[in-house]
Amino acid sequence: MRVGLDVGGSKTEGVAVASDGSIIARVRRNTGWGPDAVVETILRVVADLGAQLGADASGAASRFSSVGIGIPGQIAPGTLRVEHAVNLGIEALDLGDTVASALGVQVRVDNDVRAAALGAAVLRGGSGSIAYLNLGTGIAAGIVTGPEAGHGARRQTEPGTVWRGARGAAGEVGHISVDPAGPVCRCGQRGCIEALAGGAALAERWGRPGTHPVGDIFEAAEAGDPLALTLRGELARGVAAAVRILVLTTDVETVILGGGLTALGARLHDDVRRELEAVAEASVFLRSLALAERVELLAPGSPAAAFGAALAGAPEEGVLIHG
Amino acid sequence: MRVGLDVGGSKTEGVAVASDGSIIARVRRNTGWGPDAVVETILRVVADLGAQLGADASGAASRFSSVGIGIPGQIAPGTLRVEHAVNLGIEALDLGDTVASALGVQVRVDNDVRAAALGAAVLRGGSGSIAYLNLGTGIAAGIVTGPEAGHGARRQTEPGTVWRGARGAAGEVGHISVDPAGPVCRCGQRGCIEALAGGAALAERWGRPGTHPVGDIFEAAEAGDPLALTLRGELARGVAAAVRILVLTTDVETVILGGGLTALGARLHDDVRRELEAVAEASVFLRSLALAERVELLAPGSPAAAFGAALAGAPEEGVLIHG
Repeated sequence: MRVGLDVGGSKTEGVAVASDGSIIARVRRNTGWGPDAVVETILRVVADLGAQLGADASGAASRFSSVGIGIPGQIAPGTLRVEHAVNLGIEALDLGDTVASALGVQVRVDNDVRAAALGAAVLRGGSGSIAYLNLGTGIAAGIVTGPEAGHGARRQTEPGTVWRGARGAAGEVGHISVDPAGPVCRCGQRGCIEALAGGAALAERWGRPGTHPVGDIFEAAEAGDPLALTLRGELARGVAAAVRILVLTTDVETVILGGGLTALGARLHDDVRRELEAVAEASVFLRSLALAERVELLAPGSPAAAFGAALAGAPEEGVLIHG
Repeated sequence: MRVGLDVGGSKTEGVAVASDGSIIARVRRNTGWGPDAVVETILRVVADLGAQLGADASGAASRFSSVGIGIPGQIAPGTLRVEHAVNLGIEALDLGDTVASALGVQVRVDNDVRAAALGAAVLRGGSGSIAYLNLGTGIAAGIVTGPEAGHGARRQTEPGTVWRGARGAAGEVGHISVDPAGPVCRCGQRGCIEALAGGAALAERWGRPGTHPVGDIFEAAEAGDPLALTLRGELARGVAAAVRILVLTTDVETVILGGGLTALGARLHDDVRRELEAVAEASVFLRSLALAERVELLAPGSPAAAFGAALAGAPEEGVLIHG
């Protein structure tokens, strides 16, 4: 049985995945702040999963063959070390080693967007390639290849391959500029996709108090507020640009939108579709790609990231190292 | 022995590749216009290669195990049929079947940019992933994965895998807009990379007579001509944008510039490097990616496309079907 965790800035979600790939336990806890509290949160979530499965907390780890952790930070290639997880108060942490020695199981650590990409691809089913475009405070994508990428036939049970890139920068589409006259991005460039469509950038430009600034923008836009209309338009423009870039560069079959902003639901999805259709109106080439039809929204509350963290590089179920 | 051909709008190049991967014969002919003349050109180039290797022309094909053809057109996935090869006067042609029945050998057909990408990757050596960015009349890229993409260990002799995408659109970065106020592209959008940096778009905007308009633009820019300075700047801006998009989406280790415009040599390379460095100046994130150092120029006269066409999907040398 494999465990996957999605360590988010506010909540940490955990799932237990049976050998047939089904999710048989699922828990959620508030995430602590700083290295020690994050490790503590992870250990508690693993214990909660064990308890949910009927084991006493101390024996829970022995039932799990591996623990995969998805976390919003940089993971140095080939290591289990997290760096610059600023939303968790972590500058640098040997997360994998710390958790592995506490639990006595094999631990893997991955970037949360990559984990969510893999999880979203497998939960969606089908064999095509996907890009998972995470719309949260910032914007980044994870790319999962299908058999059409030239990998030859995959076994039905294989979950696809996450495209990582040479230096771990694959999918960093948030910092591609699509408008030299656009707003300044926190990265220093102008007109980055993240400066147009990232949650933090939108909240800052909106500048009014409220706990759900992007939801407030959509409501104010519906009431005709000019700034809100501009920002709502730029959100759709930025997301549509990211979709075009992902498809015209990698030609993934499907782009799945996920992340906090997708709580906006059909309103966001419709805006993005309309923007893609409006641009395709001018271009026979773009029309032939049918981009608007290739965009999907991740189901609300989907455990894609935790599920993907459980799958990412996990050993086959036969290779239990405990239990 | 494998044969590869690069069918260009003006010239067709052919190479014969020995089992150790070395090029042992190389020929060049003017390309005919229209389906029949293109097939005729291909058959003559194959015969020329046979003659160069000392066989009489009629027996040449029997020495070759496979013929790979790279051609500037769309190849419907899974077929050997070429469509919309407008620079060759071909609307639709069953190229693979026609050449195979004339020569009696296995034939494969690939898009010329993809073939050049594979050839450039193998000729360059090393195991890292590359994008080959073709700067010609239009702009498109081919992406070749390395072992870091998650494919596991490759055998030393394997030439990497060309990323094709779900619908054959991978690498179509020329039609990504990077400036909503930019010039109108022939595809109908505004500010496409091809509208900024494609040879045809530059020639049209330059609008003065001459057989090498982009070379003329560079010379006039050195003499201070304002339009030429603008166009030269936009060429660098467009190419740099394509490099950023390729690396931030796929994180290939190296971007190799090829195609007709690279006859400009160091002047083009320096402009692109300067543009990448100027944008990175503003952004710690971009600086960390060291983009300017990751751009290379394909050697002038490199047979990358013909060589790549010979390799693409060719059977191992032991699987000779003739000879």
